[in-house]
Amino acid sequence: MVAALLMLTLLSGCGPEVRAPNTEQSENEPGWTWSDERVAETVNAVRAGRTLQPAEWPDGARVAVLLSFDVDNETVTGLRYGDATVGSLSQGQYGARAALPRVVGLLDREGVPASFFIPAVSLVVDPSQIGVIEAAGHHEFAVHGWIHELNSSLDAGTEQALLQRAVDYMTEATGVRPLGYRAPSWNFSPNTLDIIREMGFLYDSSLMADDRPYEINANGEATGMVELPVEWILDDAPLFNPRVDRYANPRDVLQVWKDEFDGAYAERSMFLLTMHPHVIGHRSRIVVLEELIRYIKAHDGVWFATHLEAAVYVKEQAGL
Amino acid sequence: MVAALLMLTLLSGCGPEVRAPNTEQSENEPGWTWSDERVAETVNAVRAGRTLQPAEWPDGARVAVLLSFDVDNETVTGLRYGDATVGSLSQGQYGARAALPRVVGLLDREGVPASFFIPAVSLVVDPSQIGVIEAAGHHEFAVHGWIHELNSSLDAGTEQALLQRAVDYMTEATGVRPLGYRAPSWNFSPNTLDIIREMGFLYDSSLMADDRPYEINANGEATGMVELPVEWILDDAPLFNPRVDRYANPRDVLQVWKDEFDGAYAERSMFLLTMHPHVIGHRSRIVVLEELIRYIKAHDGVWFATHLEAAVYVKEQAGL
Amino acid sequence: MVAALLMLTLLSGCGPEVRAPNTEQSENEPGWTWSDERVAETVNAVRAGRTLQPAEWPDGARVAVLLSFDVDNETVTGLRYGDATVGSLSQGQYGARAALPRVVGLLDREGVPASFFIPAVSLVVDPSQIGVIEAAGHHEFAVHGWIHELNSSLDAGTEQALLQRAVDYMTEATGVRPLGYRAPSWNFSPNTLDIIREMGFLYDSSLMADDRPYEINANGEATGMVELPVEWILDDAPLFNPRVDRYANPRDVLQVWKDEFDGAYAERSMFLLTMHPHVIGHRSRIVVLEELIRYIKAHDGVWFATHLEAAVYVKEQAGL
Amino acid sequence: MVAALLMLTLLSGCGPEVRAPNTEQSENEPGWTWSDERVAETVNAVRAGRTLQPAEWPDGARVAVLLSFDVDNETVTGLRYGDATVGSLSQGQYGARAALPRVVGLLDREGVPASFFIPAVSLVVDPSQIGVIEAAGHHEFAVHGWIHELNSSLDAGTEQALLQRAVDYMTEATGVRPLGYRAPSWNFSPNTLDIIREMGFLYDSSLMADDRPYEINANGEATGMVELPVEWILDDAPLFNPRVDRYANPRDVLQVWKDEFDGAYAERSMFLLTMHPHVIGHRSRIVVLEELIRYIKAHDGVWFATHLEAAVYVKEQAGL
Repeated sequence: MVAALLMLTLLSGCGPEVRAPNTEQSENEPGWTWSDERVAETVNAVRAGRTLQPAEWPDGARVAVLLSFDVDNETVTGLRYGDATVGSLSQGQYGARAALPRVVGLLDREGVPASFFIPAVSLVVDPSQIGVIEAAGHHEFAVHGWIHELNSSLDAGTEQALLQRAVDYMTEATGVRPLGYRAPSWNFSPNTLDIIREMGFLYDSSLMADDRPYEINANGEATGMVELPVEWILDDAPLFNPRVDRYANPRDVLQVWKDEFDGAYAERSMFLLTMHPHVIGHRSRIVVLEELIRYIKAHDGVWFATHLEAAVYVKEQAGL
Repeated sequence: MVAALLMLTLLSGCGPEVRAPNTEQSENEPGWTWSDERVAETVNAVRAGRTLQPAEWPDGARVAVLLSFDVDNETVTGLRYGDATVGSLSQGQYGARAALPRVVGLLDREGVPASFFIPAVSLVVDPSQIGVIEAAGHHEFAVHGWIHELNSSLDAGTEQALLQRAVDYMTEATGVRPLGYRAPSWNFSPNTLDIIREMGFLYDSSLMADDRPYEINANGEATGMVELPVEWILDDAPLFNPRVDRYANPRDVLQVWKDEFDGAYAERSMFLLTMHPHVIGHRSRIVVLEELIRYIKAHDGVWFATHLEAAVYVKEQAGL
Repeated sequence: MVAALLMLTLLSGCGPEVRAPNTEQSENEPGWTWSDERVAETVNAVRAGRTLQPAEWPDGARVAVLLSFDVDNETVTGLRYGDATVGSLSQGQYGARAALPRVVGLLDREGVPASFFIPAVSLVVDPSQIGVIEAAGHHEFAVHGWIHELNSSLDAGTEQALLQRAVDYMTEATGVRPLGYRAPSWNFSPNTLDIIREMGFLYDSSLMADDRPYEINANGEATGMVELPVEWILDDAPLFNPRVDRYANPRDVLQVWKDEFDGAYAERSMFLLTMHPHVIGHRSRIVVLEELIRYIKAHDGVWFATHLEAAVYVKEQAGL
Repeated sequence: MVAALLMLTLLSGCGPEVRAPNTEQSENEPGWTWSDERVAETVNAVRAGRTLQPAEWPDGARVAVLLSFDVDNETVTGLRYGDATVGSLSQGQYGARAALPRVVGLLDREGVPASFFIPAVSLVVDPSQIGVIEAAGHHEFAVHGWIHELNSSLDAGTEQALLQRAVDYMTEATGVRPLGYRAPSWNFSPNTLDIIREMGFLYDSSLMADDRPYEINANGEATGMVELPVEWILDDAPLFNPRVDRYANPRDVLQVWKDEFDGAYAERSMFLLTMHPHVIGHRSRIVVLEELIRYIKAHDGVWFATHLEAAVYVKEQAGL
């Protein structure tokens, strides 16, 4: 069991969590012994409901482009599991010290807004990041847990308390109450949806049932919660950790991202890309982000927006 | 042992099963202690027999092109092993919601038939997929287990009962009795061949002894069962799971598929490619399938067929 | 411990063995507690001695090109560890049925000799391979163990007995006594060198201390045994197993092999490439071997030879 | 637990250590239970302090280029953990026998200085390497542990004693006391910083908080220790171990290294690349190093320096 946990840690690297096999898996009942009712209940507990893809984007734009940055820093390189080392913390510090200014500098030079999903402890450790993000005046602060805790494995009380602590801290530190949530595990516990509804979040950006915004249903009932879906292939972390995970040539990844954008443009839908300052902020990767932004800007009818702006817009369009 | 099971789960990702090391392996007798008779019996239990490669394909075509889609959806992202989470199920829902319409739309625009190998539960969860597949009138429904159960690890009774349940459900739901079988594990248990023979399947598409169709022998005797062989390098799943498996540049994979087609064309044999809607249906991969289809269509003498049409043809040509 | 063994099996895939961490590792004494004498004895037990790089190759050729094929087939896909399944055996059968004729056909069309390192059981399972290899009249039969046993983990008696059985079988089956040895594990047990010296092998091709042929020393003494070194980057197996290992674009691998050849050509040394019929024999890889052979043949001063011819030549040149 | 250790060994391959999950991890208290004080103390124990990026490099150069080679050889292929085999040692011997002369030959032909970080045992095993490195007269000898021990896991006394032994040996063997330190684990134990300060090292090159040189702080206090940071993406080892780790196309890696250099050039900072003779010294990789050097030399304003020269310079510029 310990070995299994270690392997998970190793494989999960510095990015969001891999879908963790249930560590009681050997006690799971395999699906072929389930009743049809149990399958239906399980599938419908939290599920994509009606599409929130608008007929068109603001000002007749063809496509919405949403860039997000998960500012994980030291929280994923040692703090969340309490296994920090000098070396692992130095990898995390790179995010605030070297990478964030480079990333924000590029965004601001190009005049592009973005959403920053932040585990509150990243700001506790280095509060100077707030000013860096605030300077352009149009970036969004959103919540990514207290310390990048593995929310999907926590009991409801702990999960709620950590999230409340994060919201309180960020509201105080930035002066604005965050309205966007991204689960640190890119996954929900059985309680996550209830928690974020009760806390008044406007949207979530953690699930993967579509390329387009949708409303989340709970047990078949519409909840009004907007989902702005993510995808592992629209994430820099899984592919850029050459020591413990996988490593892709950044320029090959650029091609994938361009192809994803082209598809969104052709279908008049949405392109949402998640990055991490300590990952994309390296010199051999920032060139890829720069080229991607320029490629997108060379198209007519592109609406660059924060996740919050997009969530508000699709909610209004849907009459929610 | 638990750790080993977890690793297998992790490594097997969302695609068909990796060849699972026997979990009683420590009790296996290594091959160097076996008698020649035991080697021969083991090798011959189920083995490729005579080739069913026809002298030529219908209308003098040089090459048969068989496209298959394993419609796994939620069955492989949580249901089969009973370890579903909100996030993993959302990845499965992507298959029916976003990917299948995109895949079928492309096939139908290009006028190309395909075979859909479906774990019955995928249709139970979202029956609207039946209409999407049926619309063009020429796609094949085939069976891929009840819930993508790991058939190669089940006792004979369980394996048979699940497969019967799948066939009954699909016959009822689609109005046509499926005649093609693909093992969910891309592997046979010691009982699989007997089960599918007794249930009257016309062909199997799970094994890998050749690039060309062949007849399966059992203990050295011809069985009349047609094998349309698959291959991991002609499968989208192993290479496109950046979080837990491997990730290849889709355009590099396209080159491999073109090279495989070119070889089939030169040798006047068969090109069989397996995909999964929730894998190939992403925007950065559908462009690859589109380009592959156009590349193939630019050749003379190509016979696009369902697996069933190919199986019937090679059986007739061989006088089976 | 069982979990560890399973992981090794998984990771070692269908190719030669990964350097197996000693399963008693937790009982190993770490190197920082060793005496200098123990370090020296360990390092010198079996070690590269004087170079056998000749001043020039036959007829003044600049470079020797040695192609080898490890004909593993079913031995590595289920037989050696006694964990065969129907599916895994079908992957092995591909080697003899589809791949070997394609590989030998290419070699013979191009007029290039090669050495076939064969676990004897591969020939027991499908003796028709002997005729396929023999037809051109210049290919070499060499030994790769009885059943691809993990020789580096066996006691001396077992290792010797299996190798003797393999030599006896191959001598009988092919009519020629094999003089070349390649360890199934691409590694030596503490007894391997003694065993192959006593059995009269002329050369080994399993170790990696150089790009050029060398004489193996034992405890600092020259043994007269010729080593024709191999390398994982000059091997097709580690990179072409998309389901359980790694997957590289074949055309990228071609570039590496060309670069290795160019280096050998510039340094007037040796280019030794190991392949496996069931790996390189796929349609999307055989094109790479074909292009490599044509690339090499476009150079002047290339000596294509079997490993045996090269071993005899360098031995003579060195006055051994 | 044993399984976990084996996995770590497997995954860590022949390169520096992966950040090892604490094997007592199950006893770690997860970060979400920590007090803010504990977070702050942990993060600040050893942390990047003020930048040592100079206003300009010597003679007005725009960029400093520091090439380092970790001469690991047999220490990482069997000696450090006491699990050497004949085959693994042959892979290590390749470093001194085939690779180092090729690497140094290239550097000397191009007139470029470099720093060699050496586990002392590599020189004990093959002292002829000293003369190879010394010949050009401008390369630096620096320390990389006694036997590539996993320093981050050792108690303070053992770590210190091994390092002292390494320094004494290298001073005696090369005639110069080494002033540069690179941790064998590319990580610090809680004692490493104290040990290297007490032993009088001028700089460290093991941590990753920036692309530019910086001063290391201890518990918030400046220490005067210069850090020349490394990075896994500026390291050849993680990407070039096709059997047990990852494998990247060398020419793709060249592009990453060029992009990293271009960024350093644009930002007028530093480009520090770590290689290993037994990794980069293969024929298909040395061409990449050659092309990189020529690419860099085609730029004006490049200062090639040893790590020691750079450390002395930035210290002086900062008035340290």
